[in-house]
Amino acid sequence: MRPQGQEEFDGHTAYDNVLTGELDSGPGSGPSPDTDSQGQGVPKDPLLFIQLNELLGWPQVLEWRETGRWVLFEEKLEVGGGRWSAPHVPTLALPSLQKLRSLLAEGLVLLDCPAQSLLELVEQVTRVESLSPELRGQLQSLLLQRPQHLIRTTGTRPCRGSAHPRESSHDEEAPLKEQRQNALRHKLPPGAEAGAVLAGELGFLAQPLGAFVRLRDPVVLGSLTEVPLPSRLPLQTQEVKDSSAPRRARAEDRHGHPQHTPSPELQRTGRLFGGLVQDVRRKASWYPSDFLDALHPQCFSAVLYIYLATITNAITFGGLLGEATDGAQGVLESFLGTAVAGAAFCLMAGQPLTILSSTGPVLVFERLLFNFSRDYSLDYLPFRLWVGIWVATFCLVLVATEASVLVRYFTRFTEEGFCALISLIFIYDAVGKMLSLTRAYPIQRPGSPAYGCFCQYPDPGGNESQWTRTKPEDRDGILSMDLIADHRSLQDLGLVNASLLPPPECVRRGGHPRGPSCHTVPDIALFSLLLFLTSFLFAMALKHVKTSRFFPSVVRKVLSDFSSVLAILLGCGLDAFLGLATPKLMVPREFKPTLPGRDWLVSSFGTNPWWLSVAAALPALLLSILIFMDQQITAVILNRAEYRLRKGAGFHLDFFCVALLMLLTSALGLPWYVSATVISLAHMDSLRRESRACAPGEPPSFLGIREQRLTGLVVFILTGISIFLAPILKFIPMPVLYGIFLYMGVAAISSIQFTKRVQLLLMPAKHQPDLLLLRHVRLSRVHLFTAIQLACLGLLWIVKSTPAAIIFPIMLLGLVGVRKALEWVFSPQELLWLDELMPEKERSTPEKGLEPECSFSGSESEESELMYQPKAPEINISVN
Amino acid sequence: MRPQGQEEFDGHTAYDNVLTGELDSGPGSGPSPDTDSQGQGVPKDPLLFIQLNELLGWPQVLEWRETGRWVLFEEKLEVGGGRWSAPHVPTLALPSLQKLRSLLAEGLVLLDCPAQSLLELVEQVTRVESLSPELRGQLQSLLLQRPQHLIRTTGTRPCRGSAHPRESSHDEEAPLKEQRQNALRHKLPPGAEAGAVLAGELGFLAQPLGAFVRLRDPVVLGSLTEVPLPSRLPLQTQEVKDSSAPRRARAEDRHGHPQHTPSPELQRTGRLFGGLVQDVRRKASWYPSDFLDALHPQCFSAVLYIYLATITNAITFGGLLGEATDGAQGVLESFLGTAVAGAAFCLMAGQPLTILSSTGPVLVFERLLFNFSRDYSLDYLPFRLWVGIWVATFCLVLVATEASVLVRYFTRFTEEGFCALISLIFIYDAVGKMLSLTRAYPIQRPGSPAYGCFCQYPDPGGNESQWTRTKPEDRDGILSMDLIADHRSLQDLGLVNASLLPPPECVRRGGHPRGPSCHTVPDIALFSLLLFLTSFLFAMALKHVKTSRFFPSVVRKVLSDFSSVLAILLGCGLDAFLGLATPKLMVPREFKPTLPGRDWLVSSFGTNPWWLSVAAALPALLLSILIFMDQQITAVILNRAEYRLRKGAGFHLDFFCVALLMLLTSALGLPWYVSATVISLAHMDSLRRESRACAPGEPPSFLGIREQRLTGLVVFILTGISIFLAPILKFIPMPVLYGIFLYMGVAAISSIQFTKRVQLLLMPAKHQPDLLLLRHVRLSRVHLFTAIQLACLGLLWIVKSTPAAIIFPIMLLGLVGVRKALEWVFSPQELLWLDELMPEKERSTPEKGLEPECSFSGSESEESELMYQPKAPEINISVN
Repeated sequence: MRPQGQEEFDGHTAYDNVLTGELDSGPGSGPSPDTDSQGQGVPKDPLLFIQLNELLGWPQVLEWRETGRWVLFEEKLEVGGGRWSAPHVPTLALPSLQKLRSLLAEGLVLLDCPAQSLLELVEQVTRVESLSPELRGQLQSLLLQRPQHLIRTTGTRPCRGSAHPRESSHDEEAPLKEQRQNALRHKLPPGAEAGAVLAGELGFLAQPLGAFVRLRDPVVLGSLTEVPLPSRLPLQTQEVKDSSAPRRARAEDRHGHPQHTPSPELQRTGRLFGGLVQDVRRKASWYPSDFLDALHPQCFSAVLYIYLATITNAITFGGLLGEATDGAQGVLESFLGTAVAGAAFCLMAGQPLTILSSTGPVLVFERLLFNFSRDYSLDYLPFRLWVGIWVATFCLVLVATEASVLVRYFTRFTEEGFCALISLIFIYDAVGKMLSLTRAYPIQRPGSPAYGCFCQYPDPGGNESQWTRTKPEDRDGILSMDLIADHRSLQDLGLVNASLLPPPECVRRGGHPRGPSCHTVPDIALFSLLLFLTSFLFAMALKHVKTSRFFPSVVRKVLSDFSSVLAILLGCGLDAFLGLATPKLMVPREFKPTLPGRDWLVSSFGTNPWWLSVAAALPALLLSILIFMDQQITAVILNRAEYRLRKGAGFHLDFFCVALLMLLTSALGLPWYVSATVISLAHMDSLRRESRACAPGEPPSFLGIREQRLTGLVVFILTGISIFLAPILKFIPMPVLYGIFLYMGVAAISSIQFTKRVQLLLMPAKHQPDLLLLRHVRLSRVHLFTAIQLACLGLLWIVKSTPAAIIFPIMLLGLVGVRKALEWVFSPQELLWLDELMPEKERSTPEKGLEPECSFSGSESEESELMYQPKAPEINISVN
Repeated sequence: MRPQGQEEFDGHTAYDNVLTGELDSGPGSGPSPDTDSQGQGVPKDPLLFIQLNELLGWPQVLEWRETGRWVLFEEKLEVGGGRWSAPHVPTLALPSLQKLRSLLAEGLVLLDCPAQSLLELVEQVTRVESLSPELRGQLQSLLLQRPQHLIRTTGTRPCRGSAHPRESSHDEEAPLKEQRQNALRHKLPPGAEAGAVLAGELGFLAQPLGAFVRLRDPVVLGSLTEVPLPSRLPLQTQEVKDSSAPRRARAEDRHGHPQHTPSPELQRTGRLFGGLVQDVRRKASWYPSDFLDALHPQCFSAVLYIYLATITNAITFGGLLGEATDGAQGVLESFLGTAVAGAAFCLMAGQPLTILSSTGPVLVFERLLFNFSRDYSLDYLPFRLWVGIWVATFCLVLVATEASVLVRYFTRFTEEGFCALISLIFIYDAVGKMLSLTRAYPIQRPGSPAYGCFCQYPDPGGNESQWTRTKPEDRDGILSMDLIADHRSLQDLGLVNASLLPPPECVRRGGHPRGPSCHTVPDIALFSLLLFLTSFLFAMALKHVKTSRFFPSVVRKVLSDFSSVLAILLGCGLDAFLGLATPKLMVPREFKPTLPGRDWLVSSFGTNPWWLSVAAALPALLLSILIFMDQQITAVILNRAEYRLRKGAGFHLDFFCVALLMLLTSALGLPWYVSATVISLAHMDSLRRESRACAPGEPPSFLGIREQRLTGLVVFILTGISIFLAPILKFIPMPVLYGIFLYMGVAAISSIQFTKRVQLLLMPAKHQPDLLLLRHVRLSRVHLFTAIQLACLGLLWIVKSTPAAIIFPIMLLGLVGVRKALEWVFSPQELLWLDELMPEKERSTPEKGLEPECSFSGSESEESELMYQPKAPEINISVN
C-alpha cells in the first residue's frame, strides 16, 4: 500500500524533468533579469539550484557531504584539491539515465507532498510499509544528519562543521550562519529554488531504494542545501523549440525592408525643425533624472577615467593642431575649447553620454584649409571664422530639414569605411611625425661630416676676424665642408678666440656656438624612437591586461582603463631619467591665445579681402558634409540598440548643438568639435550596469547604461581647470604622444569587423574563428565583400593624398552610394550577415560569444575574452 | 509476418549502441594506432564514420544531401556558409532519444542481414508486407538515389553531382572517383567502418516509418557515404569503467616505491663498468638502424633547423666565452669544439639525439675559474688542462662505479631548480651585458662635458706647442674640464694647428684626434638597446606564430622554428641599414687559436708551478659534480617515457663520452661540452612521428621519435665547415646576440611547471587554469611547494653571487637532499602530483590537454595551443 499523496509515476516524464533542470537550462531557468524587466508577461520557472549530497564513510563514520552542484552548469567537488571544479557542461552516460529511470519506476514517488519541514518530509518518505522499523529509524536519523558543505566564502577549505545528528526540529529550519553568509546566495536571482539529490551506499540494503519527492509548497529545508532556498523541485514541460523560426521570420522581415526600420527619433515630421522640437520635448522629460541618475559611486571612477582620456586627447590633438596650423592654435586653445564645447554639449545635447573632441577627419580638413590659406597668403583665423559661420548656417539648414533621418542609410559598411580611414590616418600621422623627428635630429653616421662645436667669443681687441666677416649662412658650411676638404686649419678661418663650452653655456657667457655639431644633438632621434615604441607597446600591453588571468578583476580593469595615462607617465619617467633634450610639448605659460598678438575674439576680416567671406562658403560646404558624417556616424554607433538606452537618442538636437558650438569656436579661434567615437564608447563602457546575479561560469549580463549628464559635465569642468596644468604638461615629450596616437589608431582599427574579415584572408579555413557570418555566407562571398571595402578604402586614401584632398568628405558620402550599389551584387540574406548588425534579440541566443563584437569600442577583445572567461564552459570529464 | 533475419529488438540496448558510437567514442572507437601497435591483444571495435543523409526538397525535387557526420566529434553542414561546422561535442535532447527508441521499437529491425550490396539491402528493407507496391517502388528508387556530398577536397563548394537514380547494380558498388579522392579517407585509421543514417520527410506517409539494419558482413555500399568504407554498424557492449581504479593502484604502487622504478638502463650490475658494457651491448644492436632510420625527408628539415640553432649557440657562447676568459677562447674555438665534440658524441653516444653544447652552468664555472687564475696570476690554459684531466678521471670513476643510476633521485624538483637557475643566469647576463654596453658608449646628456673633437697636426715648424708638452693623459681632461671652467681659449692650450676632420680620417692624414667627443660615439648605446629589444621581441613574437591562427601550419612552423635565426637576420639588417659603429662579434680572420701565440695543443705546465697540477683536483671535483648534474639532468629529461623512445637510453655510455671529450677539449684549449637541454629537445621535436589518421577536430597522436645518429652528425659536420663563415659572422652586432640570449632564457624559464605555479600566486582562484594538480592538491599546499622552490632558488642565486660561488655545484646537489626532506612535509600523494611526472599511460586519459606540459621543450605553449586548436572541441549549439 502506498501512503497518501503517492502516485504512479511515468518514468519518461520524470527523468526528463530531473534532468532538464540541469542540462537544458530550459526555456526560463537562466537568470535573465533583463527579460524579466522587459515585462513580457511570460511566467518564468524559477532558476534551480541543485545540490548532490553523498553519504560517505560506510561502514565506519557515515556523513553526508556535498559533492556536486548545478546552477546552469555543473560543479563537482575535487576532494584532493579541496575546491569546486571549473563550471562545465556535464557529460551523461545513458546507462545512468536507465538506472535512474528504473529507480523511479520501482521506487517511491511522492508528488505534491504536503510536508512543511525536513522532519515531516523524512517521516513521510520513511512511512513505507515494506521498511522494517529498525531500518526506518536508521534512515530517519541519517536523513536528518547535517551535510558537510564546501562553503564558498572560505575559499578552498571545506567547512569542518559537526556532523552530529539533529536533536530538535526547531533550529533545523532556521538557516545556519554559514548558509546565510554563502556568497553563492547573492549570485542567484530572486525566486530561485533549491533541489536536493541525496545518494548513498548502505551495506545492509539488499537492493536499491529510491524516492522522488515534489513538495506542494516551497519550503526551506534547514541546512540540506548550502544556500537557504526553498525546495520544491517543480516539474517543467519540455518544449521543443524551433529556434530557426524566429530568425527566419526576422530575415524575411528584413528582406522587405532592407534598411533599418526607423526608430521614433528618426521619423520625419515634415515640419521645419520638427525633429529638433520633438527631440527637445522628449529629452526635457528626462532632464531632472539626468542629474539624479548620476548618484552612484560608479560615476566617480567614470569621471576620473574619462577626464584623463579627455586631457590626453586634448594634449595630443592640441599638439598636432599646433603643428598643422603653424601655431595659429595650440594646446591652450585645445583645452579651453574642449572644456567650453564639451560642457555646453553635456548640458544641452540629446545624447549627453557623447564626449565632444577634436577628431581625425576634422584635423585633416583643418590642415588642408591652413595649407590653402598659407599658399594664397590669406589671414587664416578670419578666413576660418567665415568658414565656421557658413558651416553653422548649412548645419542649421540640415537641422531644419530634418536631414538627420538620413542616418538610416549609414550601415556598417559606411561606418567601417569611415572608421578605418580615420584609424589609418592616425597610424600614418603618428609614424610620419616620428620619422620627421629623426630628420630634425639626424643620427650621426661614421661617414657624416665632422663633429665639433666651438664657442666663439667676440674678439676682445674689436678686430673683426675672418670668421665674423664671413656671411653667417656660410659659416656652418665652411666648418663642415671646406675644413674637411681642404683641411684648412682653424686659424685660417679666424677661429681664434674659441673654447669648447656647450652651446647653451656659450650663449649665456656671450659667445656664439659654431660648428656642425652645434645643431645636431646626438642620441635624440633614437631615444625618441625608443620612447615612441615604449609608450605604444606599453599601452597595448596594458590594454590586454584586462583579459589576462592575473590579478583581481578590479586591478585589471584599472590597469587597462588607464593604459594610455600610464603609458604617458612611463614615457615621461624614462625621459626624465635620461634627461635628454627630447622635443617637448609646447604649452603656453599664460592664459592668452597661442598666436602672439591676437585677441580672443577673431577679427572678422583681418587682412583678407571682403569677398573671401563669401568664397568661404565653398570649403564650408565640404566641411559641413564632413561634420555631418562624422557626427552622425558616431551618434548612430552610440545609440545602437545593443546598448539598451532607455532615454532615447536626439540626433537633431545633437547636431543643432554642434552647429551652435561651431559658431562659438570659430569666433574664438578654438578648434572645431564633433562627437568622438572611441572616447564616447569608453564613457558608456565605464557606466555599464551589470547584473550581480549569475551562476558560476556564467558572465554577468548587461542591463544598460547609467544615462545622465553629470559625469560628462564634471569631466569638462575639470578639463577647464586643467588649463593651469601647463607647468606639468611641458615635461611631456612629443614622441610619447605620437606613441599614444599610434595606439589609438591601432586599437580603433583592430576592433572593427572589417579588420577581422581582412584577417580571414590570411587564415586557413580550418583555423578561422567560428564567426556567425561564416556559417551563413560562403567564404568567397565574404572575401568579395572585404575586397570591395578594401578597394573603397584605397580610393579614399588616394584622394586624401592628392591635391584634391579637400573633396574627401564627398568621397565619404560616396560610400553610402557604394553600399546601395552592393545590393545588386549581394543577396539581401548575405548583406544581412555581412553588413547589418545582429538584431539585439538574437544576440542572446546560444550563439552569443561567437558573433564578433561589432562596435569599435576598442577596449574589448572578444576573442581573447572567450579564451579565458568561461563564457562557453569547457567540457570537463572528471577522473573521480 | 516478419521477413527472415528480422528479430525482436530490445529498445534499450539498441539505441544505446547507436549512440555510443557517436557520443562515447567507446572503449575502442578512438583511432589509437599506438595502443594497437603495442599489441595488447584486446580486439578493438573499429572506428565508426557515421553519416547523416537527409532527404530534402519535398515535394518538388527530392534529393539526398549529407547534412551531418560523426567521427568522434560531430560536424554539421552549414548550408549558408557552404562548409562543415567546427568539430564539436554534440548536445542531445532527451526527447529525440525517446523518439528514436519508439521508432526502433515499432519499426523494422534487421540484425545480421545477409545483403551484399545496396540493391539487395534496399530490397530486404522494403520487403515488409504492410507496404503497398506503389510505396515500395517509390521507396526503393529513393533509397538508391545517390546523395550529394560536401566533398572535403574541394574546400567549400558542395559537389553538384548528378542526382539521378541508379540503373544497374554493377557500377554502384565501385567507389566513385570523388569518394576515393576524399581527403577524409586518409584521416581514418585502417579498419574504420561506416554507418549511414538516412532520414527524410515524405508528405504521403501517414506515420513515421523506421528501419534499423545491421549487416552480417561489412560491405561497401556504393556512394551511400562520402568515404568508401564498409558498413556494418556493429553492436558494442557498453562497459562502465571505473576509471579511478587503475590510478589508485598506480598511486599506491608509488607509495611503496616513492622513487622511479628503475628502468633496465638504470639497474646496477654491481661490476666495474658494468653499466657501460651493458649500454654498449644494447646500443650496438641498433647501430645499423641508427643510420637507416634517417632516410626520411623530415630529417632534412631537422638538420637545417638544428644546424642554425647550433651555430647560433656556438656564436653566442663563443662571444660570451671570449669575454669571460679575456680572449683565451673565442668564437673559433667554440665552432671547432662544437663540431669535433658534437660529431664524436653523435657517433659514439648512447643517446645520439642529444646535442652537445656549451651550457650556462659550465660557462659560469669557467668564468669563476678564469677569475681565480687571473687573481693569482696563473697561466690559465695549462691550469685548465689539469682541471680537465682531473675531471675526466673523476668522471671515469663515476662511470666505473655506475653512478649514473643515481639519476633516479633527480625528480622534477631538482630539474626545475637547475633549469630555473640556468635560465635566470641567461637573463641576468644578457641584461647585464647590454647595460655594460651603455657604459662603454655613454649617452651624452645636456649637462655632460662639451662636445668637440679636433684633428691636430704636428707643428710644421717642429716647435713643440704647449699642447704636445702636456702629458697625454692630461690632455683630454684639460679639454673637457678646464676649458669649460676657465673658458681658456684653444690657443692658450696650444691647439694651433688643428682642423675638424673625423677621427679615422684624421689618423689617416697623420694627425691626432683630440677632445672628449673623440672617444664617445653618439647614438651607439641607444641603438644597441634598440637592437637588443628588437631581436628579443621579434624572436618572442615569431615563437608565438606557431599557435596563431594565421598562415598554413607549414609556414607557421618554419617561422617559429627559425625564430632566433630570423631575429638575428633582422638585427643585422637594421644595423647594416643605419650603418652605425655598433660593437660587432669578434671573429678570427684565420684558422689559428684566438689567444695569440699559442699552439693548438695546450702546454702542460706553462708558467705554472708543478704542484698546481695536483691542486687542480679541487676545482675539478666541483666541476665534476656540475658536469654530472648538468649532463644527467638533461639525459633524464630526454629519455622520459613520454617521448616513447624505442632504442632505450645510455646514461653510462653518454657520460663516458662526455668524460673522454673533456680530456680532448682541455688538451686543445676548446670549450667544455655537455648535453644541452633546450636544443636537444628541439632536435627531438623536429623528428617527431605523428599519426596521419585522426578525426576532424582531433589532434594527431604522437607515435615516437626518429631515433638515429645521422641528423646530429650532419649538423656538426656543417658546423665544422662554418668555421670559414668568419667574413659573414663579423657583421653580427653583439646586442643582437644578447637579445637572443635573453630570449633563450625567457623561453626556457617560462616553459617549466615551476613558473606556472609561481604565476598561480598572482592569479585569483577563479581564473586559474584547470591544471590537473590543482584538482588533487590543495592550493595552499601547492603554494607551499612553490615557496620552498623559490627559497632554494634564492639561496642558489645568493651563493652564485658571493665569492663562494665556486661551490655552487655542491649546492645544486643539495637540491636532491632538499627534495628528500620534502617527503616529511608533503604526503606521497601530494608529491606524486607536485613532483613526479604523470605516468605515461594516464596521459592518454580524457584529462589529456589539461595536464600541463611538464617538459621544458620551450617551443610548445600548451595553453595557447588549447585556445586555438580544437583539442577539447567546443560545444556548439547550432541554429539550424
